[in-house]
Amino acid sequence: MSGRQDIEDLIDLMARLPGLGPRSARRAVLHLIQKRGRLMQPLAHSMQMVADNARECVRCGNIGTGDLCDICADERRANGEICVVEDVSDLWAMERAGVFKGRYHVLGGTLSALDGIGPEDLRIPALVTRVGDEQVREVILALGATVDGQTTAHYIADELSGRCTVSSLAQGVPVGGELDYLDDGTITAALTARKSL
Amino acid sequence: MSGRQDIEDLIDLMARLPGLGPRSARRAVLHLIQKRGRLMQPLAHSMQMVADNARECVRCGNIGTGDLCDICADERRANGEICVVEDVSDLWAMERAGVFKGRYHVLGGTLSALDGIGPEDLRIPALVTRVGDEQVREVILALGATVDGQTTAHYIADELSGRCTVSSLAQGVPVGGELDYLDDGTITAALTARKSL
Repeated sequence: MSGRQDIEDLIDLMARLPGLGPRSARRAVLHLIQKRGRLMQPLAHSMQMVADNARECVRCGNIGTGDLCDICADERRANGEICVVEDVSDLWAMERAGVFKGRYHVLGGTLSALDGIGPEDLRIPALVTRVGDEQVREVILALGATVDGQTTAHYIADELSGRCTVSSLAQGVPVGGELDYLDDGTITAALTARKSL
Repeated sequence: MSGRQDIEDLIDLMARLPGLGPRSARRAVLHLIQKRGRLMQPLAHSMQMVADNARECVRCGNIGTGDLCDICADERRANGEICVVEDVSDLWAMERAGVFKGRYHVLGGTLSALDGIGPEDLRIPALVTRVGDEQVREVILALGATVDGQTTAHYIADELSGRCTVSSLAQGVPVGGELDYLDDGTITAALTARKSL
């Protein structure tokens, strides 16, 4: 009987992943069991290794396997620029684009009066300290274009005013985007920030 | 640098699960890392345990942790009825309904001339042997209402004719189903098999 229970436990745990429900978790587990050697064993091993070793970088909040993440440990990325993001997933998105060559600072969320999240709950004090310690020339705010994201951006800009340049990602038409599908706010922002050719 | 690679490897493996793509696998892995203690460690451990222990039942093809699955090992389920299903997922669905008290036989697919799958590729010969060995009174075919499923059902009924009763799940209106949303084939089947009240 215990064998069936092990499988049920695995299904329950898998169902707690974002994007999987009880039904798709069951399908995933069955798929794994049918590919025990080629997929399930490597996946279990890989997951155990990451679970044992992954941790937050003490400096920027990115995820890595040492006290410092790969980016903070890389001296070539100490170029005087810090890109501020809400979450690690945003940092990964920036890295996939491969265009930013400086370091990051992961806030861990946004300010939110509604949820009672203040500057002390995020890594904002640590950001201010880093700007002083690391000879930072420019802080680039890559926060979401939401009310909370923009509130946070303005708060950080105030905190850092006079210490370094503070900029933010441009707003406008996404590459490959069609005007017909864009919301009014984006079109307004793109028109306001129009550039001469 | 290796730390980042471990995480990338985990994302690649997760993306091979049904229902997850590269993007949702990345989100799932990030979620796991952020819940290392409460979710990722138990999940890795549970997956390793199932990977090490799960195997196919030598008798019926169900998945369990011994040579015989829980159902085949349970003498109370030797009631002379065998339910034939295509896959383990169908067996699990039957067990969730909780209404069948006999044993199962997992074919591992359906006959398919197109894909070159013949009786020897499925567990059909083993089913015929079981019917002789286990004093089976009735074989209930719970196969899909597809062309291949019905071809397989007819083939098995022929093979077992004279040895035991062969029945198949009733076709009709699903419980809770509205006529307006049913296909013509189902309505035809339900009308043909109508019952007097």
